[in-house]
Amino acid sequence: MSDNEAILFANEAFYAAFARRDADAMDGVWDHRDAVTCIHPGWPPIGGRDQVMESWRAIFGNPDSPTIRASHATVQVLIDAAYVVCYESIDDGFMVATNLFVRQGKAWGMVHHQAGMAPRPTDLDAIAAPNTFQ
Amino acid sequence: MSDNEAILFANEAFYAAFARRDADAMDGVWDHRDAVTCIHPGWPPIGGRDQVMESWRAIFGNPDSPTIRASHATVQVLIDAAYVVCYESIDDGFMVATNLFVRQGKAWGMVHHQAGMAPRPTDLDAIAAPNTFQ
Repeated sequence: MSDNEAILFANEAFYAAFARRDADAMDGVWDHRDAVTCIHPGWPPIGGRDQVMESWRAIFGNPDSPTIRASHATVQVLIDAAYVVCYESIDDGFMVATNLFVRQGKAWGMVHHQAGMAPRPTDLDAIAAPNTFQ
Repeated sequence: MSDNEAILFANEAFYAAFARRDADAMDGVWDHRDAVTCIHPGWPPIGGRDQVMESWRAIFGNPDSPTIRASHATVQVLIDAAYVVCYESIDDGFMVATNLFVRQGKAWGMVHHQAGMAPRPTDLDAIAAPNTFQ
C-alpha cells in the first residue's frame, strides 16, 4: 500500500467511525499522543486526547448530529506527516475539512481535524493542486 | 531560536502580511512547492501555489476585507512539519485557524491554511493540550 493509499484509508476510517457514531473506532483512528487537537465547526478548539474523545462521544450521543459523507479527498504527504483536504456532505449542506495525520510505521494516526462550512462542490471546485487528484 | 519560536515567528509573519494586505510578504510566508492549499472561510478549497496567491491578492484588493489579529496561538511540532491553532479576531467576530508549516532549514514555510467561524474565546477556551500553552 502506498503512502497515499494508507492515508486515504485512515481518512476513510475516520469518516466510517463518524458515520457509524462508533466511539471505539474513532478512538482507534487518532494517534496515541496526548497533544491532539480538534476544531468542530462553531466550537472553540479542543486540545488533549481525552478532551477530543469526549467531544466525539458528545457528538455521537446527540440525536441531532448530522449524517456525514466525505468526498473530493486529496492528500499531501509531508514526509512523516500528511494531510487530507476533503468535502463533507451533511444533512443541510457541505463542509470542508483538514485532516492531519502522522506516520505510525505503515499506518497513519490522526492528530488534528478542522471542519467548517463550505459552498456546494462542483467538478470545477475540485482541488487543482498539481499531482494531487485522487 | 527553538522550533516553537521559529514556527510562531512564521505564524506571526503570516498575520502581519494579512493585516498589511502585503501580497509580496504573503508570498514569502508560503513554502515554494506547487502543492500548497488554502481554505478561506466559506470558499471552496484552493490548491496550487499560483491559485492560492491569487486568492490572497483578491482578498487584499477587496475594500470590504476585514482587519485581522491573531491570538491564543499554540504549536504542535510533527518532526519536519508543524501546525499552529489560533484564534483570529476580525471586525464582526472570531475565527479559528489551522496553519500548517514545513521545515525549511531553520525557517518554516506555510503549506496549508484553514479558517472558520468560532465563538468568542475566553481564558477557559484556550487550548488545553499538555505542554502546548504559549
